[in-house]
This record gives sequence, structure tokens and C-alpha cells, in this order.
Amino acid sequence: MRDRLRIVSVCVAILATLLRAPLASAADPLASWNDGAAKKSIVGFVAAATRTGGPGFIPPAERIAVFDNDGTLWAEQPYYFQLAFAFDRIRALAPQNPKWRTTEPYASVLASDIKTALAGGEKAIAEIVMVTHAGMTTDAFAKIVADWIATAKHPRFDRPYTEMVYQPMLELLAYLRANGFKTYIVSGGGIEFIRVFSEKVYGVPPEQVIGSTIDTKFELRDGKPVILREPAIDFIDDKAGKPVAINKFIGRRPVFAFGNSDGDQQMLEWTAATGRAHFMGLVHHTDAEREWAYDHPSAVGQLDTALGEATAKGWTVIDMKKDWKRVFPFEEMPAAK
Amino acid sequence: MRDRLRIVSVCVAILATLLRAPLASAADPLASWNDGAAKKSIVGFVAAATRTGGPGFIPPAERIAVFDNDGTLWAEQPYYFQLAFAFDRIRALAPQNPKWRTTEPYASVLASDIKTALAGGEKAIAEIVMVTHAGMTTDAFAKIVADWIATAKHPRFDRPYTEMVYQPMLELLAYLRANGFKTYIVSGGGIEFIRVFSEKVYGVPPEQVIGSTIDTKFELRDGKPVILREPAIDFIDDKAGKPVAINKFIGRRPVFAFGNSDGDQQMLEWTAATGRAHFMGLVHHTDAEREWAYDHPSAVGQLDTALGEATAKGWTVIDMKKDWKRVFPFEEMPAAK
Repeated sequence: MRDRLRIVSVCVAILATLLRAPLASAADPLASWNDGAAKKSIVGFVAAATRTGGPGFIPPAERIAVFDNDGTLWAEQPYYFQLAFAFDRIRALAPQNPKWRTTEPYASVLASDIKTALAGGEKAIAEIVMVTHAGMTTDAFAKIVADWIATAKHPRFDRPYTEMVYQPMLELLAYLRANGFKTYIVSGGGIEFIRVFSEKVYGVPPEQVIGSTIDTKFELRDGKPVILREPAIDFIDDKAGKPVAINKFIGRRPVFAFGNSDGDQQMLEWTAATGRAHFMGLVHHTDAEREWAYDHPSAVGQLDTALGEATAKGWTVIDMKKDWKRVFPFEEMPAAK
Repeated sequence: MRDRLRIVSVCVAILATLLRAPLASAADPLASWNDGAAKKSIVGFVAAATRTGGPGFIPPAERIAVFDNDGTLWAEQPYYFQLAFAFDRIRALAPQNPKWRTTEPYASVLASDIKTALAGGEKAIAEIVMVTHAGMTTDAFAKIVADWIATAKHPRFDRPYTEMVYQPMLELLAYLRANGFKTYIVSGGGIEFIRVFSEKVYGVPPEQVIGSTIDTKFELRDGKPVILREPAIDFIDDKAGKPVAINKFIGRRPVFAFGNSDGDQQMLEWTAATGRAHFMGLVHHTDAEREWAYDHPSAVGQLDTALGEATAKGWTVIDMKKDWKRVFPFEEMPAAK
């Protein structure tokens, strides 16, 4: 018995020593990031957070990293992808709803005149979301989303939406997890929409996805329990809602936050006030060629006051054009200079 | 380089061999459970859930275990401990609220006439909860709870409330985690109340605590972000609310659930419908000597319809008196027969 324990402890000690030394062949975990201030600030923060006893050390349990989704982990142009889903659902449900051909905003959606459809503002969008996202069980909704995401293509790139994700951010998520961070999505998008693909696409399990919610109701149907999605907003996870939802779902303050718009400003402010070492990052869309270039004014992902605060407070702002070697996974990696 | 890898793999192989063999001294992880049908059903379920390729196997990511708190993990008599907290807060705040001496339900609380104080029913309780749980920042509230839980004592046992936990359930939580389960608390109690002590007492981190919530609001106070607790109910995590909250917070169906009252019935029904192997357990309070004996009718933790369903469907019902060797950690372990 004592011998076995001695062998175990010797083996553990040898392993610890060998594994601590960097392997010569280790690839750059942030290979799609150009060397520069942004990459340096990320790597420096993570190195300090994991250096036991150092001034920037963060205990593993407190390594909470939160990411916005639209415009931060995947693209959001020409309009939020969840809206594309809703438009496709309107088209799919139109045969059972003949009145839609003559009623706004449905008529414009069916005529593919998205601009007119959205002219009704939040009220029109809420109506479109409700008829396409409510009135079914959570299981049925998850299947509808799964079927859509497996087949729908982005209008400009003709790629599945799940390929419209940012390769540098996928690397960042994996890099943080490899360093003991728990990665969360905190999105204005629907929680049950994102959960369908978050694990496969981002490596983020459903219980680490926070988003907007509609009312749901537990019910026994012929003795079988179901949860029904009802046509009423429960919570909008945007702007000041983001720290509120983080506090409710996680109950800890994040130490790392990434966003891209004014909708993420309060989440970044909340992260900056953690009391521990912290990192705040913003994706600035500056690349019209490989992606899009926009900040403000913009109907989608407006970045104005958050950019001002980032500049004033020294948050890390990613210049997509300069900081990212490639944007999407389907792009070839540029040859090394 | 190659040598290092060879040493690593040899060490790993030695460790794997040594650790796979059971240590002769390995203690029973459920030492406070008497051998019997209840213990057998738990151990059998966990053994099957972790047997790769077996019919009861559950992939690690799906090993979600949910536990009610009041009456399941800690006691709930003579009234919910969070209510004891509220009563103590009323006493502490009374000097600043002179009118309370002549206004119900405060006057009765101050006179330690809890029965009359609670005679006002849900309305009176809601009022007591709001004046004691709202109107401060989340940080301030957490400190108030931490101070209280460190000093308050249970009226019958004269022990801190954090010692009024069930030793067999602490062992069960640890046993499940050792077998790859993620343990959650799903309580009718306040989420921010439980989170103050859940990690220390149960080993359940704040992000795995789900509970009732009041409205909260993000605000900048002199440029410093705070979250304020407001005097309005957001969500009651009880009865049909439990599966709704599980779906919202976790986004997966549990495979293991433990409760003790009709308030847990829907959570257990939802677990039974997972589609995977599953376990549903109920604590039946049958031990007036070591704890309390009650089921229905009962003002606290009523167990009636859920017990009927458990009997009809073969859920595991713990008979506290027969199944538990000891109830609280401060009891001595009975000598082996």
C-alpha cells in the first residue's frame, strides 16, 4: 500500500515537471491573430491570470469569460442571423397563413423586401419573432432551428451561418478554456436559438449560454411533460440587461468580456468593476472586403458610446482589418511573410 | 523530445494501472446511508450511468443532477431558514422603523409571535421578504446574508444553520460529482441568499444555484456600476416553475433529481421524461427524534401528491429514520453492528 502511494507520487512529480516545460512543437494558439497590441494584451492578461502568486493571478473558479455573439463571435450583417431564421420561417409558414400575403410586415418579408418589413421598427420585429418563435414546445423549436441552421446559407457568402464565425475568436475561446477560463455567451439573441449550435460551433455548452428569453410554461400533455414557448417577452439580454443576466445566471462577476457594440457597454463596465484583474475587448468592424466596415450610425451592432469609453479607459479594441490574419475559417491562412 | 514523451507515457500508464485498482482503504462514499433499497438504487444508477457502452450509460456532459434545498439538503423546520433570516432582519431594522412596533406583520415578528406574523399568508410573507431583501445592492445583500449565516443559530438545535444540513446528502452530492455529475441546486429559496454559502457548505458553485429571484437593475453610482435589488418578484422557482427555470438556466434535462415536497413534483416529472436513464428521489421526513416527522398536511414542505406519484411510478423514497445512519454532521456515527 505504502509502496503504491510512493510510486504514484513519484510519477505525478515527474509528469508535473515534464508537462510544465513548454513543448518545442507547440503551435501558436492564436495563429489567426496578427502580432500587435491587441494580441499582446490578450496573451499578457492570460499569462498573468494563470501565474500563481503573481499580481494578476485569478483563481480558476473566478475565471469567467463572457462573449457577446452577434458581431463578436459571428457576423451580423446584413441583419442579425436570427432574423434571417425568422424570415425563412415566415416563408415556410405562409401557406398556412394566407392573410400574410396582404398584411405587413409579413407581405414585405414574403416579397423579400426586408427594408420595408423592418420599417415598422421594434413592433414589427417583435411580431415577426413571436409568430416564428412561440406557440410550440421547446423540443419542437430546437428541431426547427437545427433543421434551419443545417441548410440555410448566408446571402453574401453562400455559406452556412455556422461558418460565418470569426476564426480568431474561436481560437480565443479555446485558448481561454485551455487556461482554465469558463467561457460564456451573453447575447441579445434568443437563448434557445443559440443553444442549438453553441456547443458544436463554439465549444460552449448550453448551460453557459445566456440570452434573451420569451415566457415558457410547464405542462403535462397526455401525461407527458413539455415546456411551451409563449408569445411574450420575458427578458431582453441587451445593454443594462447583460450585467443583470450575468448576475442572475452566473452569480459571479466576469474577469474577461468581449463585445462589439453599444449593447455590450454595460457588460464591459460590469467586468471592469470586478475587483480582480480584468480584460475588456471590443471587435471593431473595419474590413469591408473580408467582412463589413461599420460602427455608427448603424441599424445593426451600432458602436458609438462604447468605443468612446474604450478609448478613454484603454480597453482593447480589435481593428479587424489589421489585427486578424483571417476572418472566417473558410479563408485560407495568408502565407507567412 | 522523444525521450520526454516516452517518460510521460510510461508514467501515465503506471498511474492508470495503480489508480484503477481499488485502494484497500477506500471508504464507503455513502457511509451515512444504511444498506437498503434506497442506497442500492442510487449506487446502481450511478454505476450504470458511468459504465461506458452499458444500457444505462449517460455521457458526462448530460450528467445533470438537480437538488431542491429546503428539506432536501438542509432542514426546513420550524419554518424555512430564509424566513428566520428575514425575521432577524426585521429585528435589526426595527430601530429605524418605529412604526413597525404597531403594524402587522412586523409587530408580531418583533414580539416573536411567528404564528400570528404568518397568519397574513403569502401577502404578509411577501411584505416581510421585500423589506428585508430589497432596496440595497447585490454586494450589500450578500454581506448581510454572510454576516447572518455566520452567527445565527437554529432555535431547536442551537447550531449554525449551515450545520443543519443532511450528512447523507452531502455524501451524495460528493459521490455524484466524483462520478462526473454536475450538481445543481434548484430551490424555491432566493438565488442570491443560497449562493452566499452554497459553495462552502455543499460544494455547489454560484453558477450552479437556481432559485427564486426578485427584480434587479444595473446602475452607475458615481460612475461605479452596481446592481440594485428591487422590491418586486421576478420569478418563483417552485412547482411548475422548477422545470421552467431548469430549462432556462441549464438548457438540458436533468437525469437525476432529488426533492422532498410537492413543490418538487414537476421537477421530478421533467427528469423522468429525459429520454435517458434517470433517477428520481424524495426525502420523506419520518424521524421526529433526530429531525422532524411530517408530510401532509404541512405548512412547510408539504409532501402529498408527489408521494403518491413516487409510489405509483417507483421513484426512490428515502425513509429518513430507516435509511440514514445519521442525519446531521454533528451527530456521532453510530457504532457498526
